[in-house]
Amino acid sequence: MSQAGFLKSDGRAVVVAIDHPLYSWPCAGLEDRAKILRQVTAAGADAVIASYGTIRDLRPAFGKAAPILKLDLTTVTLGSSYPLTEYVPAWTVEDALRLDVQAVLTYVQLGAPFELEALRVAGQVAAACDRHGLAYVCEIMPIECAMFPDAAAPEAIAAASRAGAELGAHVIKTTMPVPAESVGEAVACGVPVILAGGALAKDRAGLLAQVETAVAQGAAGVAFGRNVWGSRDPAGMVASLCGIVHADRRVVVQ
Amino acid sequence: MSQAGFLKSDGRAVVVAIDHPLYSWPCAGLEDRAKILRQVTAAGADAVIASYGTIRDLRPAFGKAAPILKLDLTTVTLGSSYPLTEYVPAWTVEDALRLDVQAVLTYVQLGAPFELEALRVAGQVAAACDRHGLAYVCEIMPIECAMFPDAAAPEAIAAASRAGAELGAHVIKTTMPVPAESVGEAVACGVPVILAGGALAKDRAGLLAQVETAVAQGAAGVAFGRNVWGSRDPAGMVASLCGIVHADRRVVVQ
Amino acid sequence: MSQAGFLKSDGRAVVVAIDHPLYSWPCAGLEDRAKILRQVTAAGADAVIASYGTIRDLRPAFGKAAPILKLDLTTVTLGSSYPLTEYVPAWTVEDALRLDVQAVLTYVQLGAPFELEALRVAGQVAAACDRHGLAYVCEIMPIECAMFPDAAAPEAIAAASRAGAELGAHVIKTTMPVPAESVGEAVACGVPVILAGGALAKDRAGLLAQVETAVAQGAAGVAFGRNVWGSRDPAGMVASLCGIVHADRRVVVQ
Amino acid sequence: MSQAGFLKSDGRAVVVAIDHPLYSWPCAGLEDRAKILRQVTAAGADAVIASYGTIRDLRPAFGKAAPILKLDLTTVTLGSSYPLTEYVPAWTVEDALRLDVQAVLTYVQLGAPFELEALRVAGQVAAACDRHGLAYVCEIMPIECAMFPDAAAPEAIAAASRAGAELGAHVIKTTMPVPAESVGEAVACGVPVILAGGALAKDRAGLLAQVETAVAQGAAGVAFGRNVWGSRDPAGMVASLCGIVHADRRVVVQ
Amino acid sequence: MSQAGFLKSDGRAVVVAIDHPLYSWPCAGLEDRAKILRQVTAAGADAVIASYGTIRDLRPAFGKAAPILKLDLTTVTLGSSYPLTEYVPAWTVEDALRLDVQAVLTYVQLGAPFELEALRVAGQVAAACDRHGLAYVCEIMPIECAMFPDAAAPEAIAAASRAGAELGAHVIKTTMPVPAESVGEAVACGVPVILAGGALAKDRAGLLAQVETAVAQGAAGVAFGRNVWGSRDPAGMVASLCGIVHADRRVVVQ
Repeated sequence: MSQAGFLKSDGRAVVVAIDHPLYSWPCAGLEDRAKILRQVTAAGADAVIASYGTIRDLRPAFGKAAPILKLDLTTVTLGSSYPLTEYVPAWTVEDALRLDVQAVLTYVQLGAPFELEALRVAGQVAAACDRHGLAYVCEIMPIECAMFPDAAAPEAIAAASRAGAELGAHVIKTTMPVPAESVGEAVACGVPVILAGGALAKDRAGLLAQVETAVAQGAAGVAFGRNVWGSRDPAGMVASLCGIVHADRRVVVQ
Repeated sequence: MSQAGFLKSDGRAVVVAIDHPLYSWPCAGLEDRAKILRQVTAAGADAVIASYGTIRDLRPAFGKAAPILKLDLTTVTLGSSYPLTEYVPAWTVEDALRLDVQAVLTYVQLGAPFELEALRVAGQVAAACDRHGLAYVCEIMPIECAMFPDAAAPEAIAAASRAGAELGAHVIKTTMPVPAESVGEAVACGVPVILAGGALAKDRAGLLAQVETAVAQGAAGVAFGRNVWGSRDPAGMVASLCGIVHADRRVVVQ
Repeated sequence: MSQAGFLKSDGRAVVVAIDHPLYSWPCAGLEDRAKILRQVTAAGADAVIASYGTIRDLRPAFGKAAPILKLDLTTVTLGSSYPLTEYVPAWTVEDALRLDVQAVLTYVQLGAPFELEALRVAGQVAAACDRHGLAYVCEIMPIECAMFPDAAAPEAIAAASRAGAELGAHVIKTTMPVPAESVGEAVACGVPVILAGGALAKDRAGLLAQVETAVAQGAAGVAFGRNVWGSRDPAGMVASLCGIVHADRRVVVQ
Repeated sequence: MSQAGFLKSDGRAVVVAIDHPLYSWPCAGLEDRAKILRQVTAAGADAVIASYGTIRDLRPAFGKAAPILKLDLTTVTLGSSYPLTEYVPAWTVEDALRLDVQAVLTYVQLGAPFELEALRVAGQVAAACDRHGLAYVCEIMPIECAMFPDAAAPEAIAAASRAGAELGAHVIKTTMPVPAESVGEAVACGVPVILAGGALAKDRAGLLAQVETAVAQGAAGVAFGRNVWGSRDPAGMVASLCGIVHADRRVVVQ
Repeated sequence: MSQAGFLKSDGRAVVVAIDHPLYSWPCAGLEDRAKILRQVTAAGADAVIASYGTIRDLRPAFGKAAPILKLDLTTVTLGSSYPLTEYVPAWTVEDALRLDVQAVLTYVQLGAPFELEALRVAGQVAAACDRHGLAYVCEIMPIECAMFPDAAAPEAIAAASRAGAELGAHVIKTTMPVPAESVGEAVACGVPVILAGGALAKDRAGLLAQVETAVAQGAAGVAFGRNVWGSRDPAGMVASLCGIVHADRRVVVQ
């Protein structure tokens, strides 16, 4: 497996996600896409997960950050609590190529009624990426279900990561396990694992400390959305993440 | 994003929709397609939304107005109250190219049981248009639902417009928000927003005043059907709309 | 729109339908396909609606009559009362081309649970015909439903005809409205309208008088099945129809 | 229509069917495919209906008999009483061509819940065969239902045969009607009709007498499975059938 | 039929399966894919059944063992008791070719609600393999159902094997019948039959004795997963299996 192009030479990446308006609105802080893109890329973000329309129309604002095209969508009327919902693919690897994008992403919820079809899409997209030389980021997360009563348990996150590796993902995006120290079980799958941020954290320093722990245990970085664009200081948050992810800097509560 | 060809150099357009007979009949005023087409295009309409059959068979009557091919359809027996209904794509971008049409449209109802599939079609059509150099008009409207208890509320119209932009629409057609002054929230999505007219207004001057307000707040124009062909004076209505949309003329109650 | 090839220079046609054995058997009078084909074509039929097998195997018996390939089918076990039933496409425009056939037909029931899919097929077949230079006959008929409590009412037949025109049909086959004088409302759709015969009429002269009236009001002819092959004198019936349709001859009760 | 290649110059054929292990096992007498193939082809069978695997792996054992590839399948766990079940196509005309096979077969049950889809497949396979110069055998049989209270009644078998002809079959395989004398009603469809054998007959001479009667009334032969490979003397049974079908020999009870 | 390339010149093979993490996790012993691959291939395994991701990313660790790509998947949240579940194809023969893999596998459960679709996939994959010169391993197993009250009964295993042969499998993987002596009924299908190991056996010597018996009765080898990677000594287990399968060595309880 060749390394995904958006990973730095240290094999890690700070990714920002701004795809939320297709399933959640309003998104305070994300009204002006060009502005947030310029802020986070200037602050060092390695890649940005975004929709087809955003990548096509705002490419210059990505700067040096690599766009990651999200190929699937769900209902716009999902609501901000993000209940369980079906995701279906709308765009293809061919669309990514036409947009001159080198990485794509789809979303899999393990334990959801839609799991099987999402896994099939994941496997097909992985193969399509290999055909065309793209990188496939598999966002694969357990939800609370019979097999995963605790969706953030170490073994649940490890199961998700290993499944992503078997499916052919080049990079895995999954939930931060609790405790963060346990991420090594997931990292053992052999494919770079980056961690999602989830809802806006009240304790920013605590979140950054978790990232530091996870990176120390082998995680390849983060993919944060609400904790970047929804924070009081998106550029500062990205800079802090870059410091931790790429330089192994210790977090100091500010 | 290159600008849709049917927008004037001011980035705005007056669009007339005459696609109604595929889901509503009788349509008083729309019996003679050639006549209404000649009237509205002579009066300055920039584009006309019409069915496959109408565009193929009556092209000369479009004059200088750009035809916009509606790619999807619903049941003919829908009835004039337009209840919630499924739309499915029947024609393709390839059909548009064969008809020498530069813009196409599909319809998305946010909050409907058919929302997810309609969104998928929207994303696919946007990409197909980019492949072939066409413009995609995404008609995307909230309906009354849990997330949008008021389907014309500013935040609902803004959510719909932003979703259209993320999907890759080149132009968005949506509902006139209440109040019309709030259209700026929708316009902030960055893609030209044109406003639908809905049922025939009893207060024509009031409707035109709303258009004036909306254009002043950044709307890119209108796409009116029943308020044009169902009015007592289709040509006059189009001329009035052109005056407001293209010349920022004030409405005077007649 | 170029004129369908099976219409005579007067823009009209007498069509015979012999496709019934795929959904109704026995069909007294239709046992011998070659015989009935020779009878009706010798008597002047301009076109014959038939199945794939009949057109492929009995082409010489069509004589100068143009074969119209019916692309869809329903269950064989429908029964002679023709209850509501689903039609699905089985053959394609490519099959028509291989059979050297210049016109095809599909069936749409407005108000049926299967209406939406049948409309989609109609739109797709219309476009496929345009791609390949064939004529599409859209057989589109209201059934008794909330929107059309009287399936033969003038406004119901007009709605069906107009929908067929918007879909891109080159010729419309629909129900004879009651009264026949009202067919002008349907003819106003701008596409040639030919009228179905329905069940075998007890009053042949009355049926012919209806045809005469309809043609006088602009109908482009008839497409009769049971009233031709199920009659006591198929050739005579076709000759009578040709006299009315093509020569504006008055019907005289025999 | 050109004649199916597996019919002899007299337009008739003795066909053996050995496709049963895909929906019924054990099949006493069919354990050794090569052996039964050599027996029946040495005895004069003109064609053998078999599965993809059998034709690919045992072709030399077919001798001069033409393989007929069954394109569809149902569940293996159907059981020996053959209850109503869905058949779906698994192989294609392209597969037949690659196997150097000149004839294919699919199965249609008239009156079954799966009838419509099976008819659609039949029509599509008929057209695919015409594209590639193959022969399509349509196995089409009434089952007991509202329209056919007696599934072996002359009018039921005639309806099935006529439907097969309209669908574009080159050969029809259907049920032996009761009485066998009535097969002429089915034969009137104009396409060669061959008769299935059904369950192993206790009265072999009676079965052969039925065949003799049917052939005398115009049937084009038989397609027997259990009455060949399940009999005490497969080769003898085939020889008897060949004597009746090809030489109009009278049956003498042995 | 040409012989599958992973069978040795004696027509037999010892296959190891490590595809379990896509439907069951944790898998104690399978955490490190490279390690287990090197162990089993060094010990003489002829082939290894694995996922798309494993074959793509860890090919060097396969050594001389042939990778067999499993084309279908089920839910990750299946759980370790392997309840009844749907399998769907995610990868294709084209993917196998791109990975330079010569053999593929899909899974069919006879008696499951998903049986019909799995059989269709099996037939299609068999044909696709023949088009491209690959070997198709059909993993086909009865489950407890009306037709197979005992899913390991000799007649059940024979029915499954024969069905696999009729479908066009080049190799059949099925359940070890009880008793193992009865495997000859399955072997009679004419296609090489290899036997699955199932859950980790408490009595390893007994399991090996079963293998010895089965091979003596004509089985072409084994495809073991949990009994290899889940055992205390994967390399030793593979060596024992190779001794039995390829050299007809007697098992001695160690």
